[in-house]
Amino acid sequence: MKVAVLGAATTQFGELWDISPRALVREAVSEALLASNLRITDIDALYVGNMLSGILGGQENLGAFFAEELGFAGPAFKIEGACASGGLAFYNGAVAVRSGMFERVLVVGVEKMTDHKPEDVALGLMGAGSDVERQAGITFPGLYAILARAHMEKYGTTEEELAAVAVKNHFHAVLNSKAHFNNLITIAKVLASPKIADPLKLLDCSPISDGAAAAVIVSEAVAQKGQTPVWLIGAGVASDSLGLAGRKEITSLSAAKRAAKLAYKAARVGPRDIEVAEVHDCFTIAELIALEDLGFYEPGKAGKALLREELTLGKAQHLVVNPSGGLKACGHPVGATGVKQVVEIVSQLRGTSGKRQVEKTRIGLTHNVGGSGAVAAVHIFQGKAGSGKGKG
Amino acid sequence: MKVAVLGAATTQFGELWDISPRALVREAVSEALLASNLRITDIDALYVGNMLSGILGGQENLGAFFAEELGFAGPAFKIEGACASGGLAFYNGAVAVRSGMFERVLVVGVEKMTDHKPEDVALGLMGAGSDVERQAGITFPGLYAILARAHMEKYGTTEEELAAVAVKNHFHAVLNSKAHFNNLITIAKVLASPKIADPLKLLDCSPISDGAAAAVIVSEAVAQKGQTPVWLIGAGVASDSLGLAGRKEITSLSAAKRAAKLAYKAARVGPRDIEVAEVHDCFTIAELIALEDLGFYEPGKAGKALLREELTLGKAQHLVVNPSGGLKACGHPVGATGVKQVVEIVSQLRGTSGKRQVEKTRIGLTHNVGGSGAVAAVHIFQGKAGSGKGKG
Repeated sequence: MKVAVLGAATTQFGELWDISPRALVREAVSEALLASNLRITDIDALYVGNMLSGILGGQENLGAFFAEELGFAGPAFKIEGACASGGLAFYNGAVAVRSGMFERVLVVGVEKMTDHKPEDVALGLMGAGSDVERQAGITFPGLYAILARAHMEKYGTTEEELAAVAVKNHFHAVLNSKAHFNNLITIAKVLASPKIADPLKLLDCSPISDGAAAAVIVSEAVAQKGQTPVWLIGAGVASDSLGLAGRKEITSLSAAKRAAKLAYKAARVGPRDIEVAEVHDCFTIAELIALEDLGFYEPGKAGKALLREELTLGKAQHLVVNPSGGLKACGHPVGATGVKQVVEIVSQLRGTSGKRQVEKTRIGLTHNVGGSGAVAAVHIFQGKAGSGKGKG
Repeated sequence: MKVAVLGAATTQFGELWDISPRALVREAVSEALLASNLRITDIDALYVGNMLSGILGGQENLGAFFAEELGFAGPAFKIEGACASGGLAFYNGAVAVRSGMFERVLVVGVEKMTDHKPEDVALGLMGAGSDVERQAGITFPGLYAILARAHMEKYGTTEEELAAVAVKNHFHAVLNSKAHFNNLITIAKVLASPKIADPLKLLDCSPISDGAAAAVIVSEAVAQKGQTPVWLIGAGVASDSLGLAGRKEITSLSAAKRAAKLAYKAARVGPRDIEVAEVHDCFTIAELIALEDLGFYEPGKAGKALLREELTLGKAQHLVVNPSGGLKACGHPVGATGVKQVVEIVSQLRGTSGKRQVEKTRIGLTHNVGGSGAVAAVHIFQGKAGSGKGKG
């Protein structure tokens, strides 16, 4: 059974101290429903992606919490999978439509992080780590720094190559009015920024952000009545050990590779068919590894490609990565991220991305990772042939 | 597409200070897999129901957390919906099998509560309440006491009628070696127990418990190869306002009524067809309201039926409620409860419940509630005609 995305929208991402989680969700959902030509009463089920509302705010039962806020009284679920919560919520929403139980499912991802003390947020995020890692006092920059060191040692990856990820994603974010950051940076500036966890520097790290994103998933029958549906043609989720110590190798993320394999197989496409992708660049090393895990480059080759600006809007030959600005520059409100990736790809495949529109794009991919790679979700989408600026 | 439950099992419920969440999950899952004649490598996806691991333990990413513990590397999800987390995880596992994405899904519910200070647990549980309720400092006994007072005022319900729920469920729990409590109580003893939140007394309240429960859900094709599948014939989930103040009436739970309606409709059965039910008796008033919400009795009539012991094993004419001992006496490890209800009904429909077997039972129901009724899940099951002690 085919499923499609109709409307999809994000709020502004950033330090939104004066906007509540309720208001963020209301805004993203209203816009997604409007774009779908649907009302909340048309929705059959609600899937909420969120990680930290319990740890940071003591609030759980989030499915019902946001259902009430939206005036929705049907089935409502919260899906948690750390930084992949949004992607996993989207996945389950799509599965639910595919099951035939529901025709119109609303997925919303949300996170409110900047109201809390940074040390509380850092500790909260370690809820995604293994208990050994948590007890050792390591935080996520440290975990990804270990991945970076291993990659550098094995493949000769350089700090400049890592910095190129941040430079590209800031360049894209400048074109995205919803992005957390809107400043251009240079490799030199990244290299000169304060060390966080060697070799990662401040500008290698995605920010702590607030934000929400929503998408409406519908059955084939409903999609065909709407305008410009974007089809979900493949999806995969896989898991791995929570902690780095439990893995055979740490220069790639096994869960991401296996999730991608499942998604490619279902979609009957390969890495060369992907023309636009939103990947999980919580740290620059994460994007570099993602480019290799997704098969866009051979292991050890992505860094050089980044330095050649092969994946940058306006310079790319066949694939643009993180046109939204990615987690690095669009921002990373944890539970919202996986849904925001879908919003961006849907917009790109419809040809509605304005200044940051990737030309001639028909197939796009999202890649959302939880923890340091303990869970990953990959989705592949196809625009309607001939729609927007698609190749058709 | 039909789905069925193969193996299903619970751990001991109780104050299990020396057993970790990992060990609880391992035990429940091992037994459920063994009963299904499956190994973990046969499983296609894992759904974990849990509410409090983040708030109480700072641990999230629970899908991957337990996947690692179980040696499972496929798709893993945590579903949270307060005290309905287990029921909602089961629901999503069933939807996933129905979608055709997966053939064999493992659902596990787990909660570890007794290691924490009672005041922390009480506060954590209020994560299921509205923010107004949380800020007012009310806790769940208080919320359910408000429901009890309203029901008493409207229908003349008595404290003896409430007490009869606890007496019945302790009577059943004595026959259940996995139950938290194994002591008989009397109405007089309930009435004489310390007041918690007037009119609810200590023995009107379910305990804080540890425990896990697991069930394997399979497709029709897989079920037909196994022995004695129990079919899921109807399911419904609905939501309502988080707080009591947002509801039109509080002598019934609208979400539970609507969830039941959906489940009955899908199953093509009515309340009179149900022969065994596990209902969400977090407080005695909750069971009394459940009996009315599920259509077993007219509003205001359940209390008298409870005094007549109409729902008690060995005395019931056509329906036994909470043969496991319910939340009240079997215990209430929050995330495990909804899955434990399924385990009990599956066992009853197979005729494998030993001393607490309900005779001639073919159709059973589970009723799992989150918060004070903000979300509810109802599932209806049918045993294979002629199997066990079924009517056939």
